[in-house]
Amino acid sequence: MDIKTYLRTGKEAVDSFFQAYFGEQKRPAVLQEAMLYSLFAGGKRIRPVLAMASYEACGGASAEIVPYAATLELIHTYSLIHDDLPAMDDDDLRRGKPTNHKVYGEAVAILAGDALLTEAFCILSDPSFCPSVGGDALMRASREIALASGREGMVGGQVQDILSEDADPDGETLQFIHRHKTAALIRASIRVGGILAAAGEEKIDALTRYGENIGHAFQIIDDILDVVGETQELGKTVGSDEKINKMTYPRLYGLERSREIAGRLVDEALSSLGTFPAAADPLREIARYLLSRRS
Amino acid sequence: MDIKTYLRTGKEAVDSFFQAYFGEQKRPAVLQEAMLYSLFAGGKRIRPVLAMASYEACGGASAEIVPYAATLELIHTYSLIHDDLPAMDDDDLRRGKPTNHKVYGEAVAILAGDALLTEAFCILSDPSFCPSVGGDALMRASREIALASGREGMVGGQVQDILSEDADPDGETLQFIHRHKTAALIRASIRVGGILAAAGEEKIDALTRYGENIGHAFQIIDDILDVVGETQELGKTVGSDEKINKMTYPRLYGLERSREIAGRLVDEALSSLGTFPAAADPLREIARYLLSRRS
Repeated sequence: MDIKTYLRTGKEAVDSFFQAYFGEQKRPAVLQEAMLYSLFAGGKRIRPVLAMASYEACGGASAEIVPYAATLELIHTYSLIHDDLPAMDDDDLRRGKPTNHKVYGEAVAILAGDALLTEAFCILSDPSFCPSVGGDALMRASREIALASGREGMVGGQVQDILSEDADPDGETLQFIHRHKTAALIRASIRVGGILAAAGEEKIDALTRYGENIGHAFQIIDDILDVVGETQELGKTVGSDEKINKMTYPRLYGLERSREIAGRLVDEALSSLGTFPAAADPLREIARYLLSRRS
Repeated sequence: MDIKTYLRTGKEAVDSFFQAYFGEQKRPAVLQEAMLYSLFAGGKRIRPVLAMASYEACGGASAEIVPYAATLELIHTYSLIHDDLPAMDDDDLRRGKPTNHKVYGEAVAILAGDALLTEAFCILSDPSFCPSVGGDALMRASREIALASGREGMVGGQVQDILSEDADPDGETLQFIHRHKTAALIRASIRVGGILAAAGEEKIDALTRYGENIGHAFQIIDDILDVVGETQELGKTVGSDEKINKMTYPRLYGLERSREIAGRLVDEALSSLGTFPAAADPLREIARYLLSRRS
């Protein structure tokens, strides 16, 4: 299989869903415009694709769950809009484009984020999107996503990240931030694929181990790219984490050791898929791809 | 029945649930502290009480659905925190206490709001809270609340409100703002009671008419109180809407005519409950109480 084609096909399925879902103009127009501005700002849809690949690994046909997988991108996008706000990271650029509040102002940016988060749960509470998914599985998936996004997941990690600016880095706090701010939603993306496929607990446990290792590696690689990436490829100001003195892996362990840690985590992710059939190959290839990415 | 006792009892049930639910300290402590600061800042829990009263009107025992009813307060509270932000209404006081961002800073206030919104859907996707409620009814209630809170409801109304500052008031825009910013979640609160009780569509339609009229009246009375209330009773700066030139009923129609409109809406709410038994008396009394409230 060609992983780049796989990723592109998955992204196109998610984009098509968003285009249809947001096809009707709603009032006030500027709110929808602001939501779609960030939603279509070049995201790779890696979280939805992970959910779809995980659903496939458990024997499902990924086209069936695109709307539910897409909610992970709604939540990821809202978190980026809020993270970029002047009161948070105060970023002017995101994926090479002006951040949401730079275009629409802070008030609309905050509310566009709120609306994207809420929209995720509009979709996750509508069983008519995917008749092949049972109501119990859908509710469990919804709870998985909510828990990973809130105070015990992504939001908790973001608060800890803010509290830790300018602090002396320590490994335990850094781990907490990564596990919550980024890894929790990635872990949930992968678990949700298994949950929606009504996979057995043993399979879901294996997917969870895969997801935890991938999620952790993903953030370390983000940190590395922030140090070594090109502004052009990364679409944000290189070194912006260092600028505001954020705690990162390269800062704590150096670049080389950070790369080693990420490589080991990807190996562990792959080994946790040991008993899965060839249908799990996309998950395997995504793990390898994440390690090699340059943006 | 004594409406004040009824409201107090309902509020206590919701508060007890929150105390138990948030009883365990989670890291980072400041996030939970900020969430609870606004959650326990003196709210009357009118939305949860409306849901519980509506559940009773359809033959249920309101104690059964306290956790689900309480999610309406989580969402209402998040919306107040975000509305008060400097980028929005820039309010220093709320219910007589410093607003969330005044105490915890803007970043934590934004994230505390995000976490409260997300927490609502953690609870709404957990069927174990209320075994008497079926999974289908719970999912339908969750969708009702999500739709009323997002771009087609509360958030949409708030964006329109911001867009309309300093604009010449017109009745149609004012109606749009009220119907979305405040009335949508109140309407949903009442519908959710019927949905959780698995009431028939005819009953839910009647509750919807009650909810729409009450929701509309509620915002008009808020506007009136903003003009005539005492800062002490209201807990926010009187005239603060006028200060930032917000579109309001008193500004558009004058005080007396605004009061008339609110009174007529309450009458219509009461008549829509015509066929309901005595179990709907709390809903009837709440409608009368809203019209007479002073804060």
